[in-house]
Amino acid sequence: MKRNLLLTPGPTQVPPNLCAALGKPIIHHRTPQFQDNIKQVVEGLRQVYQTKNDIYILTSSGSGAMEASVVNLLSPKDTAIAVDGGKFGERWVELCQAYKANTIVHKVQWGKAPTADEIRKLLTAHPDTKAVFITLAETSTGVTPDVKAIGEVVKNSKAVLVVDAVSGLAVQEIKTDEWHCDVVVCASHKGLMLPPGLAFVSASPKAIELMNHSTTPKYYFDLKEYKKAIEKVDTPFTPAIGILIALVESLNMIKQDGLQNMFARYALLAQATRAGCRAIGLTLFPDESCATNVLTAVNVPAGIDGEKLTKTMRDTYGITFAGGQDKLKGKVIRMAHMGALDEYDILTGLACLEKVLHQMGHKFELGAALSAAQKVLNQK
Amino acid sequence: MKRNLLLTPGPTQVPPNLCAALGKPIIHHRTPQFQDNIKQVVEGLRQVYQTKNDIYILTSSGSGAMEASVVNLLSPKDTAIAVDGGKFGERWVELCQAYKANTIVHKVQWGKAPTADEIRKLLTAHPDTKAVFITLAETSTGVTPDVKAIGEVVKNSKAVLVVDAVSGLAVQEIKTDEWHCDVVVCASHKGLMLPPGLAFVSASPKAIELMNHSTTPKYYFDLKEYKKAIEKVDTPFTPAIGILIALVESLNMIKQDGLQNMFARYALLAQATRAGCRAIGLTLFPDESCATNVLTAVNVPAGIDGEKLTKTMRDTYGITFAGGQDKLKGKVIRMAHMGALDEYDILTGLACLEKVLHQMGHKFELGAALSAAQKVLNQK
Repeated sequence: MKRNLLLTPGPTQVPPNLCAALGKPIIHHRTPQFQDNIKQVVEGLRQVYQTKNDIYILTSSGSGAMEASVVNLLSPKDTAIAVDGGKFGERWVELCQAYKANTIVHKVQWGKAPTADEIRKLLTAHPDTKAVFITLAETSTGVTPDVKAIGEVVKNSKAVLVVDAVSGLAVQEIKTDEWHCDVVVCASHKGLMLPPGLAFVSASPKAIELMNHSTTPKYYFDLKEYKKAIEKVDTPFTPAIGILIALVESLNMIKQDGLQNMFARYALLAQATRAGCRAIGLTLFPDESCATNVLTAVNVPAGIDGEKLTKTMRDTYGITFAGGQDKLKGKVIRMAHMGALDEYDILTGLACLEKVLHQMGHKFELGAALSAAQKVLNQK
Repeated sequence: MKRNLLLTPGPTQVPPNLCAALGKPIIHHRTPQFQDNIKQVVEGLRQVYQTKNDIYILTSSGSGAMEASVVNLLSPKDTAIAVDGGKFGERWVELCQAYKANTIVHKVQWGKAPTADEIRKLLTAHPDTKAVFITLAETSTGVTPDVKAIGEVVKNSKAVLVVDAVSGLAVQEIKTDEWHCDVVVCASHKGLMLPPGLAFVSASPKAIELMNHSTTPKYYFDLKEYKKAIEKVDTPFTPAIGILIALVESLNMIKQDGLQNMFARYALLAQATRAGCRAIGLTLFPDESCATNVLTAVNVPAGIDGEKLTKTMRDTYGITFAGGQDKLKGKVIRMAHMGALDEYDILTGLACLEKVLHQMGHKFELGAALSAAQKVLNQK
């Protein structure tokens, strides 16, 4: 009878109707019946991406789609700017370096966001830059940059702007076209509420132009093949059929909910969580000014073993938070606000957090986090 | 009320209990609970692979795992022998060429198998060969080579033997260790009875030695990272969690059934199908001596439109066969014997094939295929 609640920044909770969709018999992928599904997925994703650009469907985790961006946009020795302010920014750096790009690493202190001004200066110093790689929601730190402002800067350069939106899409606003995001990468297991297995890459005409000139060797992630295939409503390789069929239903749910309503809901959940955390003496890890609504990262209070805290919540009570990664291991806990979560899930998470912190000797008034969150959730 | 029966060589039919497993809520992948699943998957796959070698779990289609083999075993300019006797052999060639290997293409007539003797001669002519790439069950033609004999030849060279067993594993025998198959590639959506999304690569010590010296750039498919991860019962990137959890159940089904019993069942289904086809005047496409039990490819009779035949079976009656690929388009039909299929499914397929051939004017005695198949299925 133990609850199984994922408040982790990916994978996220799969709602019961999507579980049921995942349990449906599959159909063959080279059929008109499956093409109907592909069509609906591309249309649905275009709405969530807010784009008219191409969208390619890859069978991989989000990292596979990140790799696809790098190997298709860059050739060896091309200059790329990779913004590294956390684990996922670091992945951009590793990918660019693995594929022999001249990688300009823009290190940002964990918990802070890169600014458009910093990117402008880097582009001025490196006018031959082919691509700028950033992260919409850096889940290791809980930070989001001003993508719109960065887009304004990059669009006036030769470079394309590549956004890792794996953890942000369908959770916080990203206006792919209006903000000049040339390539936006996403995956099935975050805001789209499904298990991992599918990933997506959008590509603007500016990005496609670069793709056509890239000399980096590639095959499974060769986006030119995905482009050719999607024009025939097909995929170059056997796709994750089951997840794709369920994605049609997930995108319908998102459409019915309304993107703006969803963004507002996640923002409210984030605000409530933070009020709850503050009420029991926990402080936000990232700068408040650049905190994403995708998740809340808070500092573990002095004297509390952060790893034991999340382990007990998960193993004893079935409520899964994420701990800190790398240098933040044991120092922060992370609670996601994405996918199929509502206010009662957030209250459940806070209740369990209170319970275990109380057991571990942290001093606060039991119920304080719940009360504070409840006030935010029910304000006008 | 239309039947939905997949007799295609991938994806294959997902049995109801695995559909139910796919519909279960997922758990987070960085937890001891998920590690239990990884452990069971590796143990179960080792039994099906008949190996003690490492097995790495990738989130991709089978082609992703093929790419992983190429980019990890070879460095640019390395010599590789790629056997090309159909669409999937062609994929080995394309992959080796994409990654700048000195690719010795061994063309084999469609419908015939490469021989150990041919491989021996090629290895003698190219003693610096690093890897030999073959296909266990070439589904485009219905052919299987003598992998054991090829393994005996390759083991005495510097080269590793790489087997694409995507369509063969758990359907026909492959003794990874005993036959000296250094790398064996597989995927979730064929003999393992699940939707596509997961792929697997086994690696012998000889293969790992090569992996450690490969200079081909790679990241998402860098098997050194998968090796490090699996030693900690982990994956380097977020895996297709839902499929992996269901795979535990699939592997338990296979264990209960018994590998040898399964091979015998598929062989009997193949024999029955072929008897049925012969009884209505259809001839086998590949040479009988090298026909795989994984599927039956038969020639479309003169005067019959092969594409219309499979389209009608699928769209009007819900029974999906595969047509021919490339130069065999419209000329053969292919009926798989893998995954969760029994004798009644084969009879259903033959019944529908009779129905539509009859409607299209092919002359034969209705029921002849069924009778012939039924006799084989019920022989001592």
